[in-house]
Amino acid sequence: MLDLSTMCRRPGGVVMGWCSSGSPLLGEAMAVAGFDALTVDLQHGVQDFSDALRVLQAIDGRGVPALCRVPWNEPGILMKALDAGFQGIICPMIDDRAQAEQLARCCHYPPLGMRSFGPHRAMISIGDDYMDQAREGLVILPMVETEAGLRNIDEILAVPGISGVYVGPNDLALALGYPAQAIPRAEVQSHIDHILARTKAAGKICGIACGSAQMVANMLAAGFHIATLQNDLRLFLQGMSQQLADTRQLLEAVA
Amino acid sequence: MLDLSTMCRRPGGVVMGWCSSGSPLLGEAMAVAGFDALTVDLQHGVQDFSDALRVLQAIDGRGVPALCRVPWNEPGILMKALDAGFQGIICPMIDDRAQAEQLARCCHYPPLGMRSFGPHRAMISIGDDYMDQAREGLVILPMVETEAGLRNIDEILAVPGISGVYVGPNDLALALGYPAQAIPRAEVQSHIDHILARTKAAGKICGIACGSAQMVANMLAAGFHIATLQNDLRLFLQGMSQQLADTRQLLEAVA
Amino acid sequence: MLDLSTMCRRPGGVVMGWCSSGSPLLGEAMAVAGFDALTVDLQHGVQDFSDALRVLQAIDGRGVPALCRVPWNEPGILMKALDAGFQGIICPMIDDRAQAEQLARCCHYPPLGMRSFGPHRAMISIGDDYMDQAREGLVILPMVETEAGLRNIDEILAVPGISGVYVGPNDLALALGYPAQAIPRAEVQSHIDHILARTKAAGKICGIACGSAQMVANMLAAGFHIATLQNDLRLFLQGMSQQLADTRQLLEAVA
Amino acid sequence: MLDLSTMCRRPGGVVMGWCSSGSPLLGEAMAVAGFDALTVDLQHGVQDFSDALRVLQAIDGRGVPALCRVPWNEPGILMKALDAGFQGIICPMIDDRAQAEQLARCCHYPPLGMRSFGPHRAMISIGDDYMDQAREGLVILPMVETEAGLRNIDEILAVPGISGVYVGPNDLALALGYPAQAIPRAEVQSHIDHILARTKAAGKICGIACGSAQMVANMLAAGFHIATLQNDLRLFLQGMSQQLADTRQLLEAVA
Amino acid sequence: MLDLSTMCRRPGGVVMGWCSSGSPLLGEAMAVAGFDALTVDLQHGVQDFSDALRVLQAIDGRGVPALCRVPWNEPGILMKALDAGFQGIICPMIDDRAQAEQLARCCHYPPLGMRSFGPHRAMISIGDDYMDQAREGLVILPMVETEAGLRNIDEILAVPGISGVYVGPNDLALALGYPAQAIPRAEVQSHIDHILARTKAAGKICGIACGSAQMVANMLAAGFHIATLQNDLRLFLQGMSQQLADTRQLLEAVA
Amino acid sequence: MLDLSTMCRRPGGVVMGWCSSGSPLLGEAMAVAGFDALTVDLQHGVQDFSDALRVLQAIDGRGVPALCRVPWNEPGILMKALDAGFQGIICPMIDDRAQAEQLARCCHYPPLGMRSFGPHRAMISIGDDYMDQAREGLVILPMVETEAGLRNIDEILAVPGISGVYVGPNDLALALGYPAQAIPRAEVQSHIDHILARTKAAGKICGIACGSAQMVANMLAAGFHIATLQNDLRLFLQGMSQQLADTRQLLEAVA
Ligand SMILES: [Mg+2]
Ligand SMILES: [Mg+2]
Ligand SMILES: [Mg+2]
Ligand SMILES: [Mg+2]
Ligand SMILES: [Mg+2]
Ligand SMILES: [Mg+2]
Repeated sequence: MLDLSTMCRRPGGVVMGWCSSGSPLLGEAMAVAGFDALTVDLQHGVQDFSDALRVLQAIDGRGVPALCRVPWNEPGILMKALDAGFQGIICPMIDDRAQAEQLARCCHYPPLGMRSFGPHRAMISIGDDYMDQAREGLVILPMVETEAGLRNIDEILAVPGISGVYVGPNDLALALGYPAQAIPRAEVQSHIDHILARTKAAGKICGIACGSAQMVANMLAAGFHIATLQNDLRLFLQGMSQQLADTRQLLEAVA
Repeated sequence: MLDLSTMCRRPGGVVMGWCSSGSPLLGEAMAVAGFDALTVDLQHGVQDFSDALRVLQAIDGRGVPALCRVPWNEPGILMKALDAGFQGIICPMIDDRAQAEQLARCCHYPPLGMRSFGPHRAMISIGDDYMDQAREGLVILPMVETEAGLRNIDEILAVPGISGVYVGPNDLALALGYPAQAIPRAEVQSHIDHILARTKAAGKICGIACGSAQMVANMLAAGFHIATLQNDLRLFLQGMSQQLADTRQLLEAVA
Repeated sequence: MLDLSTMCRRPGGVVMGWCSSGSPLLGEAMAVAGFDALTVDLQHGVQDFSDALRVLQAIDGRGVPALCRVPWNEPGILMKALDAGFQGIICPMIDDRAQAEQLARCCHYPPLGMRSFGPHRAMISIGDDYMDQAREGLVILPMVETEAGLRNIDEILAVPGISGVYVGPNDLALALGYPAQAIPRAEVQSHIDHILARTKAAGKICGIACGSAQMVANMLAAGFHIATLQNDLRLFLQGMSQQLADTRQLLEAVA
Repeated sequence: MLDLSTMCRRPGGVVMGWCSSGSPLLGEAMAVAGFDALTVDLQHGVQDFSDALRVLQAIDGRGVPALCRVPWNEPGILMKALDAGFQGIICPMIDDRAQAEQLARCCHYPPLGMRSFGPHRAMISIGDDYMDQAREGLVILPMVETEAGLRNIDEILAVPGISGVYVGPNDLALALGYPAQAIPRAEVQSHIDHILARTKAAGKICGIACGSAQMVANMLAAGFHIATLQNDLRLFLQGMSQQLADTRQLLEAVA
Repeated sequence: MLDLSTMCRRPGGVVMGWCSSGSPLLGEAMAVAGFDALTVDLQHGVQDFSDALRVLQAIDGRGVPALCRVPWNEPGILMKALDAGFQGIICPMIDDRAQAEQLARCCHYPPLGMRSFGPHRAMISIGDDYMDQAREGLVILPMVETEAGLRNIDEILAVPGISGVYVGPNDLALALGYPAQAIPRAEVQSHIDHILARTKAAGKICGIACGSAQMVANMLAAGFHIATLQNDLRLFLQGMSQQLADTRQLLEAVA
Repeated sequence: MLDLSTMCRRPGGVVMGWCSSGSPLLGEAMAVAGFDALTVDLQHGVQDFSDALRVLQAIDGRGVPALCRVPWNEPGILMKALDAGFQGIICPMIDDRAQAEQLARCCHYPPLGMRSFGPHRAMISIGDDYMDQAREGLVILPMVETEAGLRNIDEILAVPGISGVYVGPNDLALALGYPAQAIPRAEVQSHIDHILARTKAAGKICGIACGSAQMVANMLAAGFHIATLQNDLRLFLQGMSQQLADTRQLLEAVA
């Protein structure tokens, strides 16, 4: 069932996990662990469509809805991701109404859009009534993470078939002349606050990538519908580096 | 170059990483992070020979030697793993001299053993003089982790072509009637101490799987040549669960 | 040999099979079973380029020519598919002359087009004289399945390097405001008849996707050169569901 | 949860599906379609451990328990299959008590057996209490399909840790000097009846491979706990061949 | 069709190619290039069953029969390789009658052997009458390449269901105390001559691995039925190294 | 470390290898053999992003920098390739300033470009300071191989963020009305000389694909910074065909 859309509206919001490693095993571990939803990242994730499909197959059936972040606003991959059974799309670097309209057209069947018919796996994983569910239930989130996107936030939000926006704080920081940072600096955060305010004013869904558990909690408390707790690869790297460093330090102590 | 054998003899010992997930990306991250050596686990690891090969290909060239733990003491996979360019073998559940002899025969070329000729990838990754290096440089470690293995430790250690032994504390605990535990209880530890003492008396290499950074430090301080810091999958699971739990707790706090 | 082009002109037409599942095993089973030609679907098929390549490798050599349906009218994948040795292209949702011209340019070498040189696998599977064969022998079929495509059918057919058109009845139905259906309703069928008539008038190849054996027979009898009998996944789903339903019913009978 | 064991005891029995094609997509389609349980076949299935793992990952989470048929009674693959999270094992061509005991030892932890500890994926998919569940919940089914197996059925059934037996009618027919057939001839069926009677007398689970929906219904009605409806590949081949034959026939009719 | 058996008896013998790299692309290039037959090597080849299957799928249909060299004389992989559609088996390091009998039993259906029924892919690629063809047409070649094998050559050749023997000159050299060499030294060659003489006396097929085109020609001229021209990986390495060395030398000349 | 940029400036130039086959094994063999750098070809190479990633993983760590040739000038794949850790890009068929500017924007972070942040694998393989290194160290080479490209060579070279150009002699020949040839004919070579002269005048890097060792030597002697010695697949095909032809000829001689 396409239930992410409803889930985003519930109090408390959605704690999202993020699958970047291309490992189905890590994906299913996250699905079991208790994330509300997961995104499989085809943009910066170290994986291709076929890998993402296998990660999705390892998640599906556990009641955890999955989104796909596509590499770019390109019709071929947008439609393939939806046909595969992802419940929605996060699309990077949308600058303006025209780009948002192209995104929306690719994600919706006529008359709203021009999505081509053939949801083979989606009809298996979501159900025989996929076409009906897809009319309302898909979550389509352009990323606002460029100067143009910031400027044009209202016209992006106004595009029919767009469910809201997803904020990429790192790219936003780079675009504004600051380095990428786990926790946005004040100059970046004020723009994030603005995006949230405009999105809520438009009655749409607002999501954001977060660099820490604290930031997830803060963003959901601030009203975001979706807040993403870093990614599987970073979680591994942090744990692994820490334990190895601990080992080296303890070794010196016992030596 | 087959350098793990020499590395095991140096002061301080070898801090080993363990690749169970089947992800080449996690494998190369561990190779870069500073482990002295890595083992790719075909026994309990969630992977097959082809996956292990790809993990090895992602490790090789970074100066971090890699061992293969095979699923069982079976000639086909033992020879395939060595042909692939692994610097040695960890073989589970060796009970006695006969099993250790079969292991050794499969890992060494005549006249010592009966390994078949065809080290295609090993000659690429180790060098054109692989046959010469393989005569002395391979590290062949039967696991002592059963009651029979404990009883027959000396005859196992006496087998020509065996480099030492590797201790599996979890299986040892189960064999002795205790549950598997991250840190061995005293009743198990005393057997581990015995294995170490007999192996050092035989002048051979002794390795052990460890459930924490502290245990790695302790075991190396106690004289083990190799101590393994849990595995990539467990490092991921711990980090991921912790961060998700933190998030849930912080969410309640801000709510 | 690039023989699909000739095959399309023979009396009786081409009964096409369609590979959507990404399984090379199902692909070769269809190649053996007696389809005249096969299409590997990268648009709605649950597969990526590498999967499609493996399906093609399982088909090739059995004398069954294979087409690729690409995900979208994008130069990169068009040229990759032809380099891989597909005998031609089916390209979704071509609306007008400009799109058809871009498609044709990507599929033909200069001076007709701008296809880049490097048909590595094609020279293995088709032959050393691939460049000569490719000049005449490739089958390039834009899909006419949108309102714009319907309107612009004649200018699309007039584009040099275009072999004809391929009809997608489901998308056509959606575009015209009807639901997707296995067998087109009369309002859709009349447009299909028009496309066929215009294509035959232009002396070009006309293909169509069909939802049943009866529709394949009817369309070939009506003059289509290519008619496609649903896809491997649907054939599996139908057979599997039917047998499972039979089992449940028989179980009640014997209970 | 390891629930197949319980499911086998419920009235009506288990309608099993069988995954031979190596396609995760076909596997998840069968999981969705309503089979009570699925077996992924590593013996005659056109797949390896890594493929089987991906099929299992596509099934898991949908509440459909999965068994693995291993290629042979070999410790390495038996333990890998259980570690991967399969709920049990079907093991081909068990001839006598000794072979059944080796099978049981490989599938159970001490003190009953010698299974090695490391159920990485099983702890993710089955639960943190996997070790407790595994003590009672695994379904271990030697196949009785040879003359020796027939003779030694009682001693096989008596082995602790063996859950019952699974009948392979094709191999049984070949062993008895008859050709393999979808529906067993009377001479073979009488031996099958005998196996069922002895197994029920022993209070254990009895399963069987069936060549038609009717045979599934008959066998469950006769008291089998598990009856398997052919395999994914055969379901595809039957549907595909039939539709292609229909097409050719209809084509002649319209010509 | 299982035609390798017949091909081996024709005048001129069989020039065999050898697939070690795991690349289906190289495999199909060899199938196209004009080898009489190909062997996919699971022993020393850098590949697993699933890779070998894909290589086989890329060869099949081009009229070039393919053998599988298995990693070891183990029932599971022997039956999987034959089920996959390989026309026969080369099995390493057969020492005596008992080992040859086990090999033969695994490769033949009852009453001759104990091969289990389920040739799913073989029935697709070889034909519906596979069971009939398999009775006579499979080529089963134990390798004679150990001292024991040399001693027991006659009893190995006498085993029913064994088609002949295949000589591994490198392992034979190592077993006799000489280094592995591309072209066997006289002391090794005399043993090879003996194997050939005994095999021809038994009226069976004799094959051999060769290190050069000249050796292939010599061995076929000497009466071998099969002579193998090194492997795909070595062909690549030789060509690549030579061209790179040429480049470096020419660079010095122009500098 | 991103060191290809520096390597291109050293006397003697860069002898580049080219990975088209999709085989990680061939890729690591080339990395070991002594090429100065390698390119993994996603355009005409028989491989997809995931294959290219595995080839890169097999090369990395051996001190041999790797470039990616992308299929087309498309933001998604350009950013994915750089995120994967390739040290730079070769991009086919750049015609003019606008296309070169889009290429440069996709490859550089703000303020120079619009590359999106997320170099997950690059930070593992290149280093934690990847963002700093990427500012200067990436090598971005548009291909000049069309008539438009020839005309607009100076404006292409003037684009900030473009490191130079790479010449594709085959496509250049086709564009000029000549057949593709291993060694360019004089009419094509004169255009190549012109490209080299303009690039050197602009102080930028000039690379070229070569059809022989002699051409590599000549081009480097002529001042090219990079000259590529054909590709892995062609090296294999040449060696394999030659040895098979030798065999056939020797067989006739001995017959
Ligand atoms: Mg971003
Ligand atoms: Mg253990
Ligand atoms: Mg369509
Ligand atoms: Mg059977
Ligand atoms: Mg040998
Ligand atoms: Mg080019």
